[in-house]
Amino acid sequence: MNSPANITDPLVLFMPSGKRGRFPIGTPVLDAARQLGVYVESVCGGRATCGRCQIEVQEGNFAKHKIVSSNDHISPKGPKEERYERVRGLPEGRRLSCSATIQGDLVVDVPQDTVINAQTIRKAATDRAIERNAAVQMCYVEVDEPDMHKPLGDLDRLKAVLAKDWGWKDLRVAQHLIPEVQKILRKEKWAVTATIHKDMEFSRATLIALYPGLKNEAYGVACDIGSTTIAMHLVSLLSGRIVASAGAPNPQIRFGEDVMSRVSYVMMNPDGREAMTKAVREAVNGLIGEVCEQGGVDRNDIFDSVFVCNPIMHHLFLGIDPTELGQAPFALAVSSAVQGWTHDIGIEVNRGARFYLLPCIAGHVGADAAGAALSEGPHRQDKMMLLVDVGTNAEIVLGNRNHVVAASSPTGPAFEGAEISSGQRAAPGAIERVRIDPETLEPKYRVIGVDKWSDEDGFEEAAKATGVTGICGSAIIEVVAEMYLSGLISEDGVVDGALSARTHRIIENGRTFSYLLRDGEPRITVTQNDIRAIQLAKAALYAGIKLLMEKQNITGVDTIRFAGAFGSFIDPKYAMVLGLIPDCDLSEVKAVGNAAGTGALMALLNRDHRREIEREVSRIEKIETALEPDFQQLFINAMALPNKVDPFPRLSEQVTLPPRSAVSEEGGSVESAAPRRRSREERAARRGRS
Amino acid sequence: MNSPANITDPLVLFMPSGKRGRFPIGTPVLDAARQLGVYVESVCGGRATCGRCQIEVQEGNFAKHKIVSSNDHISPKGPKEERYERVRGLPEGRRLSCSATIQGDLVVDVPQDTVINAQTIRKAATDRAIERNAAVQMCYVEVDEPDMHKPLGDLDRLKAVLAKDWGWKDLRVAQHLIPEVQKILRKEKWAVTATIHKDMEFSRATLIALYPGLKNEAYGVACDIGSTTIAMHLVSLLSGRIVASAGAPNPQIRFGEDVMSRVSYVMMNPDGREAMTKAVREAVNGLIGEVCEQGGVDRNDIFDSVFVCNPIMHHLFLGIDPTELGQAPFALAVSSAVQGWTHDIGIEVNRGARFYLLPCIAGHVGADAAGAALSEGPHRQDKMMLLVDVGTNAEIVLGNRNHVVAASSPTGPAFEGAEISSGQRAAPGAIERVRIDPETLEPKYRVIGVDKWSDEDGFEEAAKATGVTGICGSAIIEVVAEMYLSGLISEDGVVDGALSARTHRIIENGRTFSYLLRDGEPRITVTQNDIRAIQLAKAALYAGIKLLMEKQNITGVDTIRFAGAFGSFIDPKYAMVLGLIPDCDLSEVKAVGNAAGTGALMALLNRDHRREIEREVSRIEKIETALEPDFQQLFINAMALPNKVDPFPRLSEQVTLPPRSAVSEEGGSVESAAPRRRSREERAARRGRS
Repeated sequence: MNSPANITDPLVLFMPSGKRGRFPIGTPVLDAARQLGVYVESVCGGRATCGRCQIEVQEGNFAKHKIVSSNDHISPKGPKEERYERVRGLPEGRRLSCSATIQGDLVVDVPQDTVINAQTIRKAATDRAIERNAAVQMCYVEVDEPDMHKPLGDLDRLKAVLAKDWGWKDLRVAQHLIPEVQKILRKEKWAVTATIHKDMEFSRATLIALYPGLKNEAYGVACDIGSTTIAMHLVSLLSGRIVASAGAPNPQIRFGEDVMSRVSYVMMNPDGREAMTKAVREAVNGLIGEVCEQGGVDRNDIFDSVFVCNPIMHHLFLGIDPTELGQAPFALAVSSAVQGWTHDIGIEVNRGARFYLLPCIAGHVGADAAGAALSEGPHRQDKMMLLVDVGTNAEIVLGNRNHVVAASSPTGPAFEGAEISSGQRAAPGAIERVRIDPETLEPKYRVIGVDKWSDEDGFEEAAKATGVTGICGSAIIEVVAEMYLSGLISEDGVVDGALSARTHRIIENGRTFSYLLRDGEPRITVTQNDIRAIQLAKAALYAGIKLLMEKQNITGVDTIRFAGAFGSFIDPKYAMVLGLIPDCDLSEVKAVGNAAGTGALMALLNRDHRREIEREVSRIEKIETALEPDFQQLFINAMALPNKVDPFPRLSEQVTLPPRSAVSEEGGSVESAAPRRRSREERAARRGRS
Repeated sequence: MNSPANITDPLVLFMPSGKRGRFPIGTPVLDAARQLGVYVESVCGGRATCGRCQIEVQEGNFAKHKIVSSNDHISPKGPKEERYERVRGLPEGRRLSCSATIQGDLVVDVPQDTVINAQTIRKAATDRAIERNAAVQMCYVEVDEPDMHKPLGDLDRLKAVLAKDWGWKDLRVAQHLIPEVQKILRKEKWAVTATIHKDMEFSRATLIALYPGLKNEAYGVACDIGSTTIAMHLVSLLSGRIVASAGAPNPQIRFGEDVMSRVSYVMMNPDGREAMTKAVREAVNGLIGEVCEQGGVDRNDIFDSVFVCNPIMHHLFLGIDPTELGQAPFALAVSSAVQGWTHDIGIEVNRGARFYLLPCIAGHVGADAAGAALSEGPHRQDKMMLLVDVGTNAEIVLGNRNHVVAASSPTGPAFEGAEISSGQRAAPGAIERVRIDPETLEPKYRVIGVDKWSDEDGFEEAAKATGVTGICGSAIIEVVAEMYLSGLISEDGVVDGALSARTHRIIENGRTFSYLLRDGEPRITVTQNDIRAIQLAKAALYAGIKLLMEKQNITGVDTIRFAGAFGSFIDPKYAMVLGLIPDCDLSEVKAVGNAAGTGALMALLNRDHRREIEREVSRIEKIETALEPDFQQLFINAMALPNKVDPFPRLSEQVTLPPRSAVSEEGGSVESAAPRRRSREERAARRGRS
């Protein structure tokens, strides 16, 4: 429509994408955005009625043009835009880009309402905007009435105007819509809004829903199906706003606490797979109901959904028998991204809605790890980034824009408090912080649900409600690290029995010694076996990291991201003291919360992120620790506190690798932005349930 | 793989396609066929185990090469081919094109087992071969076993080998298969046969079924859903052979005899649409059961299906409310071709099977007319072809390769024996042939189910079983034509009462006269009203034809095709005498039987025919007779016997157009190749049911 751009034409820069181009004076800003591939929403197709194409003009002066106020560089509001402002209201500084035309150089800010912030990531270092390019678009059109001279079907004329007004050529039509089209077209005198899904297999656009008149809402859900917890965001696909978030326990827990026990359940019970598939789908449907109620949204207005999960959850959710994942060679039924109709997997949203599951990286490194990789983006960095998500297995991703490697390592459940004499899940009453005075060897600790440290006045009174019930994962790390720092244990992890002369807290326990952390009811000790369990777990994690560092041919990493719930609660300093992670500037060690869920959100809001992670997953070098001849030696070396470079002969005789079990059973959880105390209680409550 | 072709390379000509090319000596014939786009089936991918790629070498000498026997121009049988011949047998003269290599100039005959012949078309003038290029292909592959070093999913490795061995890039996978893949792959040690559908929307290839080991069978059905009769062929998609054919009455008849009464039923009954959709789908499922039993085929081995039907059957079959088709502007919900999963429309064949419905031409000219046009192919002719299918409406297609026009004309049910005093459907006892002696004015006639003419000895005895019950459509044409030829009626259709002086067969009947055809029980007469009804029907048909001839700017047609059951039984001579059709060399007037069903068969066996008819339907000029100012005058002119060019003032005052009802209610029927007498009885029996 516009004549070709000329060097004397105004220059327009779109933010935050940074895309720029020259356009003749009089070009609508929306047209300029489209020509540059800048995604600006519009439902009404330039009729100035939907209000979705709002932009802000930040400034308007570049080199060759005279410096003038930006008001001169954009057309004044015309009658259509003024009518919209009068009827619907327009925030200060906002313009409708379909109506505002370019009159001079412009910097155009496209508001990105989705910000990854405290609402989605706990302890987020930076707020990040996700640029929107959702797979769903709402397109208002006015269809030609039937004409006996040109007897094209109603649907065919609808397709013709969608091609003419919106450029949708060769549009597919969801089969279930065909019997509905005629009635819908006639309800509002041939004016309809078509819901187009642009991310079907191979980017074929498809008509998935149709509404009479102008329909100005479209939603999607991003969901992380963890073994323990299922977390979900409900998002407006038109504004990018997170409308509601919720979490719920994974009801599959009744079939088995961890993923491997669920695989066993399938192997032992003929209906086991079906029962677990049904359970997880019901839970997802329940959560959809919850976020819809929170957000005041009709579940039929949900048109798209993105899921992340570990490989076994992935298979069970899709109705695939996970038995193969329970035994070598841990063959995934499908590793690439899976998409389809939500209807076909029993998810109850709009009948035409689609689902997208991120690709799995390997048999033990699932779509959740892919989601975390998408969120943190080692492949987008110059820095060498280490991304770890610790659960029963640790998923480890290491790399930068040149090369990324990934592996899982069998850490076992010690970090989660299992296999520890006084271990427990994080819940009110669990010790979560520990300090030991290196002089007196006396401990102090904090308990979930209690604000005071144990050596402060009134602690016992404050702890009456919860009691002091055990040690959770983060405190296990700290107590072992503090014991090492205070000399209670040696580099090889042996509790120094000689110190029983200096303190009553060293207790003889058969042939080994324990450390008395709390002499109350219950009595809480850290035994030699506890320390061994932590050593094994941390050695497995560190050996996995070290193996990937060898693959990358590096001796240090630039930046570290701890994903998942465990990562959110451990203190990076203690992780480093204990040798869970390689040395790194502490300011570069960050907990990123449910990064997998954030990755799902990114893939929901911008389909370019789907292509990005599909490409990256195919590029990632997958390392299977069990097949690596070096891994055993690295594991043995990593038993020391902190890690040794050379073999540790004494230990090598005593230890064996923990058996290969399965992928992380840690699903992420959605943390609210409520004050710390409240969020801790919520978290505790959630963990208590699982 | 082969080096580029050289002018000295052998020349290979493939028949019947006529495609040719030069290939280096040693090129397998199958590879040469593929490079030229000649469709030769192969399931095993060149392993010489499936035997599907058989060809015949007809001759082997062209211009530049010396004349030698063809045996020298093709490689001798190698060990693989010899093993196949020993184990499975190879017909005389057949070779496996995957194993036989080019050694010199060759004419290669690709056997086309589907021949449109007496089995499918009654009174077929010529046997025609349908070149095969089915939408379904069976592809045998051997999949890599899982590798922990390259942890691609099982499905992903299957896709990789399908890309490598068969060239299927970006293959889609039917969602229902995903949970099945792992077990199927492991059943025969990673050897599987993939069923690929190549005619999804926009030709995206899709994996729709998967079998352990070599699976060497694939079937499809072609189905014509008529208002009265549903007819079906079961076809091997690999050999092209028609395995079985069957017909059944359309159970929707209980909701209304003709299509308009079914639309009324939908308008009057809230569950009417659903009930009729269910009925027709059940009937189709029943027929599938019948053809499968006949052919010894498992219905799960049916992967593709093609349907033709008139617009109202089309809508009801797809579950679309046909109400809009009952009133102007007769808007189709969808006019373009519709395809989808048979599972979604309740057709019970393989879970991954697809369906394809030919496009509709207009609100009264359906996918059945498109099927007939595809079968007879006016758009493929230099000759100007008239194609008519007469039912309650007549569908008329007229054109040649330059331009095709189409219309429907409201003939009403008179041609089917309705609205005729002694009219009846074609069934035993119905008069089907009539002759009147121009001297004596005495009639003779033949009756369905009786071999003798009525004036032959023993007729009454022979007719005792059936009786003589009425006049069917073909005889109505004949009796009116014979009355005209013998001077019993004038050009304007008035029975000449003065002739009552010459014969007792002219009977006064109030103010008009009737002709006594049979003076028995029942007494069968042809009344003035009967003649008027036939005049109206034939005038509507002829006016429609004439209108299309005006659109084409022609005064005569080169060739005429009568499609449908009515066309199969009328004598073209009488049709011409009466002025149903324009003058044409009688040898160029042909009945083509169920041409719509033949079109469905063509679209099933060769997906190029789908593109052909989609293209042609979009090109056809659609004429709505009700909107044409000339139509009324043409109609009046056509009331005369035979048609007048000038208006007929006397009649124009008396007649009005029959009300616009709806499209033809004549579905085609499958005629067997059994001897004439038996087939007539079968036909009669079938009509008796409807």
